Amino acid sequence: MDITTIIGAVAGVSMMVAAIMERSGLAGLKLFWSFSSILITMGGTFAATMVNYSFHQLVEVFAIAKKVIKQKDENPLALIDTIVRLTKKMRTQGPLAIEQDVKGISNSFLRHGFLLYLSNVEIEIIRTELETEITFLQERHKIGQEIFVTMGTFSPAFGMLGTIIGLIMMLAKLEDQSVIASGMAVALVTTLYGALAANLFFLPVAGKLKRKNDDEVLIKEIIIEGIISIKKGDIPSIIESKLKAYLPPKTRVRNIISK
Amino acid sequence: MDITTIIGAVAGVSMMVAAIMERSGLAGLKLFWSFSSILITMGGTFAATMVNYSFHQLVEVFAIAKKVIKQKDENPLALIDTIVRLTKKMRTQGPLAIEQDVKGISNSFLRHGFLLYLSNVEIEIIRTELETEITFLQERHKIGQEIFVTMGTFSPAFGMLGTIIGLIMMLAKLEDQSVIASGMAVALVTTLYGALAANLFFLPVAGKLKRKNDDEVLIKEIIIEGIISIKKGDIPSIIESKLKAYLPPKTRVRNIISK
Amino acid sequence: MDITTIIGAVAGVSMMVAAIMERSGLAGLKLFWSFSSILITMGGTFAATMVNYSFHQLVEVFAIAKKVIKQKDENPLALIDTIVRLTKKMRTQGPLAIEQDVKGISNSFLRHGFLLYLSNVEIEIIRTELETEITFLQERHKIGQEIFVTMGTFSPAFGMLGTIIGLIMMLAKLEDQSVIASGMAVALVTTLYGALAANLFFLPVAGKLKRKNDDEVLIKEIIIEGIISIKKGDIPSIIESKLKAYLPPKTRVRNIISK
Amino acid sequence: MDITTIIGAVAGVSMMVAAIMERSGLAGLKLFWSFSSILITMGGTFAATMVNYSFHQLVEVFAIAKKVIKQKDENPLALIDTIVRLTKKMRTQGPLAIEQDVKGISNSFLRHGFLLYLSNVEIEIIRTELETEITFLQERHKIGQEIFVTMGTFSPAFGMLGTIIGLIMMLAKLEDQSVIASGMAVALVTTLYGALAANLFFLPVAGKLKRKNDDEVLIKEIIIEGIISIKKGDIPSIIESKLKAYLPPKTRVRNIISK
Amino acid sequence: MDITTIIGAVAGVSMMVAAIMERSGLAGLKLFWSFSSILITMGGTFAATMVNYSFHQLVEVFAIAKKVIKQKDENPLALIDTIVRLTKKMRTQGPLAIEQDVKGISNSFLRHGFLLYLSNVEIEIIRTELETEITFLQERHKIGQEIFVTMGTFSPAFGMLGTIIGLIMMLAKLEDQSVIASGMAVALVTTLYGALAANLFFLPVAGKLKRKNDDEVLIKEIIIEGIISIKKGDIPSIIESKLKAYLPPKTRVRNIISK
Repeated sequence: MDITTIIGAVAGVSMMVAAIMERSGLAGLKLFWSFSSILITMGGTFAATMVNYSFHQLVEVFAIAKKVIKQKDENPLALIDTIVRLTKKMRTQGPLAIEQDVKGISNSFLRHGFLLYLSNVEIEIIRTELETEITFLQERHKIGQEIFVTMGTFSPAFGMLGTIIGLIMMLAKLEDQSVIASGMAVALVTTLYGALAANLFFLPVAGKLKRKNDDEVLIKEIIIEGIISIKKGDIPSIIESKLKAYLPPKTRVRNIISK
Repeated sequence: MDITTIIGAVAGVSMMVAAIMERSGLAGLKLFWSFSSILITMGGTFAATMVNYSFHQLVEVFAIAKKVIKQKDENPLALIDTIVRLTKKMRTQGPLAIEQDVKGISNSFLRHGFLLYLSNVEIEIIRTELETEITFLQERHKIGQEIFVTMGTFSPAFGMLGTIIGLIMMLAKLEDQSVIASGMAVALVTTLYGALAANLFFLPVAGKLKRKNDDEVLIKEIIIEGIISIKKGDIPSIIESKLKAYLPPKTRVRNIISK
Repeated sequence: MDITTIIGAVAGVSMMVAAIMERSGLAGLKLFWSFSSILITMGGTFAATMVNYSFHQLVEVFAIAKKVIKQKDENPLALIDTIVRLTKKMRTQGPLAIEQDVKGISNSFLRHGFLLYLSNVEIEIIRTELETEITFLQERHKIGQEIFVTMGTFSPAFGMLGTIIGLIMMLAKLEDQSVIASGMAVALVTTLYGALAANLFFLPVAGKLKRKNDDEVLIKEIIIEGIISIKKGDIPSIIESKLKAYLPPKTRVRNIISK
Repeated sequence: MDITTIIGAVAGVSMMVAAIMERSGLAGLKLFWSFSSILITMGGTFAATMVNYSFHQLVEVFAIAKKVIKQKDENPLALIDTIVRLTKKMRTQGPLAIEQDVKGISNSFLRHGFLLYLSNVEIEIIRTELETEITFLQERHKIGQEIFVTMGTFSPAFGMLGTIIGLIMMLAKLEDQSVIASGMAVALVTTLYGALAANLFFLPVAGKLKRKNDDEVLIKEIIIEGIISIKKGDIPSIIESKLKAYLPPKTRVRNIISK
Repeated sequence: MDITTIIGAVAGVSMMVAAIMERSGLAGLKLFWSFSSILITMGGTFAATMVNYSFHQLVEVFAIAKKVIKQKDENPLALIDTIVRLTKKMRTQGPLAIEQDVKGISNSFLRHGFLLYLSNVEIEIIRTELETEITFLQERHKIGQEIFVTMGTFSPAFGMLGTIIGLIMMLAKLEDQSVIASGMAVALVTTLYGALAANLFFLPVAGKLKRKNDDEVLIKEIIIEGIISIKKGDIPSIIESKLKAYLPPKTRVRNIISK
């Protein structure tokens, strides 16, 4: 569960609310609610995104976003430990001994890799099968990220559009000046919604998806390297040093100290 | 027929209309119609696009857009099935047996590929002929997409230009203040048109064209790979696994389950 | 003569004029003329472009623009026909027989190519000589296009600058409110000029130059391929199919039908 | 210690303060302080950045920024001198003689390189070990720089957002006109904060990080080349000329003169 | 001396002045002078650029700009003539005969090249030495250009910032409406300064530096090719045609005509 995303979003909105309340108390908050503004900003953004992508892609993107944000960050060192431990066990007790352990591995990609290994498939087929999975994963994540960026581009545009609609309506039926002011306040709320959605949600989530993707791909690359090494018959210490080369030097050292 | 494009565009406009009507009823809608604003925004956009491209390209782009949006999405699994089925038939009954089936294939690119195969052309000529077709298709789609992006860039510019024209006219003959307000409302309608056309139509359709192109090219690449495989004399099961490697793992699995 | 460029530019301005006249008749047009605004917008744009490029390049760019827009679009099929026809004649009547025809070829690049062929230069020298010409042509066109994009970037900036100058002057000597309005109208005219010049002229012409360049380079590449083929001694039918591979399939087919 | 960064930032703020005081004395400065504006601009920026990156990355980026800005610029010529001097000593007195010198080297990367050399590790392992360190360093710096650019993009957006919030509140409760003016002043302070933070801090610091990274990587590359050269048994004068090839000609010449 | 840069900058400012005077005479010019606006715009721009780059780089960039703008454009044909002439002399009278001529060559890069040739250095060392010089030259020019682009980006930002500062001060102490107007005029002057500095100076000079760099690199590449050719023992006519291949066909022809 990616807690900083939630904390960041909540903190961002809270700080706006605090700033508003500092200036004019709870009453001030009422000014910032407008149903028709939500209709224009969010409705327009989703409509434009639907024209741009297919409905299927839009549905999937929310599934990806949900999964990625919920997903626990895998600790690469724990993963390397698991791989090395199972390799050692296998070298002393034979492949059959680890079948039970493999079934208990929580990372589905690593489990899939070990199962491929145990089923005696050729090395090139294992590599192709696992790398293909990464390729399609990246493709899916890239589209997910792209859609969030698209929504982050459309939402301020529709916010601005909503403000123009509000201004036109206000200017057309204007008689006394006080109405101008409050009408303009209502019109500006739409711009606020569009800018807030883009800057506190769509664009940063797109950035987070990119980072989560990079992390997940690194983990999966370590797993592929590990399975291939085992298949090649490397000894556990070689496997460990091969896999640790994927991690920054500091992390590696820290681990040795903490042992 | 790409239904989401239509739904998205209609939904986007509807939500604007709903937001306007929620605030000031049907009467409010009248404010948003201005013939001279359409003249400036759309006229200016098309004029500038005409300076940029040739008339021929402009006409063709609408043909492409229409074709691409109308076109049914090809199901790659059904296509692979067809290829594998015909290969099996040919291996048991000879090439002549499938001539009738080939004529009945709805996908013109696949039909063309099979006809090339049946006419005993060399493998390299088949590949070149079919790949050239993809190259020119991509070229045409790229220009189509580029033109929509160009129009999506020009239309808010001309919308803004129309508003400036409106402002100048209003400011010049201004005596009483109430006229300012309504004159400004009229002027702003042009900005609205330009921004709406760009954000709900030109730019998202450009995005959709890109995606449709990617889908179509993938389908065509699967077909080329299939025809080449048949020509090389691969057995049906090899052809099937070669072609399915183009699809995401999930799709492939789902298919096996649904069999 | 590239008629769409002229039509587009004229149509764009006409539509603006029509929109203005629809709202306030001929009298409205007077508002949009301001000599000092032209001085600031166009003067500033050319001055900045002169700082950016050399005077020599600026002069040449207008020559290129003029030449490119005036230039007739070459029909690639007619060109291929000419090449094939002359090759056939040469194979039956010898090289001397076509000397007169070569002198009558209107495309100077093709004529130059044939003259090189007839003067018995080595194949590599022909290729180098002709390809160098394309390289320098592209270089010149690229700078031309770049200068138009630069002007399209500077002109709205100077338009905005002129409006700020106008606003400062108006605000400083302001006593009665009616003057504000008309002063602001005058100030805004400069923004209008800058935006119009960029969006209806500089940027679309830059786009057109790019397209014209692509067309011209394609034509010249076909010619090089043709001359090299003749030099290599290919038979006319091979030359024809080699050259037609440069054209989209549809064009080739259409030609066969129209024969 | 990178003094220009501090001087630049202080000078930038001072000049603003001076300009304000020139116009309205010390009293004018009070107008530019608003706690709720800081809450919105900085709070919003950090919140959005937290959604985008992980908390861990955000903490680390400030550590990198601090380290990089504090870090003394290494003089490459002094470094080359050290390498050449130690090589000469080793060639006359043997590797053991320099052990004490190596421990005293202030640059930790160079010290690490010499220790690797003295421990008789193979040449390829030395190279891999040192180059890996550069790779991870660059990765860390790239993310640091990217985060500053992200903050420089979010901060004007939240500044603008705060101004819109201020405008809405002001317009809604507006009765007398003088309140409009002062309310608008308060609202604009938020835009000022956002723009100032972006243009005087986030974006230029991102640029500085890039430059510091380039310098550090160059230094480290010279060190790797040096250690590898020693390992290969090159004579001191060859090592010197190899390493000086990394420096601009002018620097090299100047050195020879100053000797 | 690059006269168009000076002419362009002077013409740009003159046209603004003319436009102002056309509207309100000499008195109008006084409105456009504000010391505190210069402090904010230029001071802020230099401060931010100092945070971004090192002080050393900032100083050097003005040296580069000065040198590049002052520098005479080298005529490549004259240069080729010199190279060919000296080669001919050397072939008839021996290397010693040209020592005096070499000392008199005004282009320092060509002189350096000939001196390297005369000192009998190996061909690969000559090439490396001269090409390294080009590499570092390009690096220096690239940073120079980048700094001007950076200043062209910061200056409108600080101009806008200064206007916001001016607006805040004006709005806060506002009582009578006439003060608003003149206060706003003063505030807008800062935006004008920032935009003018960017569009008439920083950005176009960055463009000019790029072009000057391209010219200088071409000249230096011709020189390297020339020296290498002489070293290889090519005959003068071959050297001439090799070097002229660097120039556009038109230039070459024109030269032949003018002979």
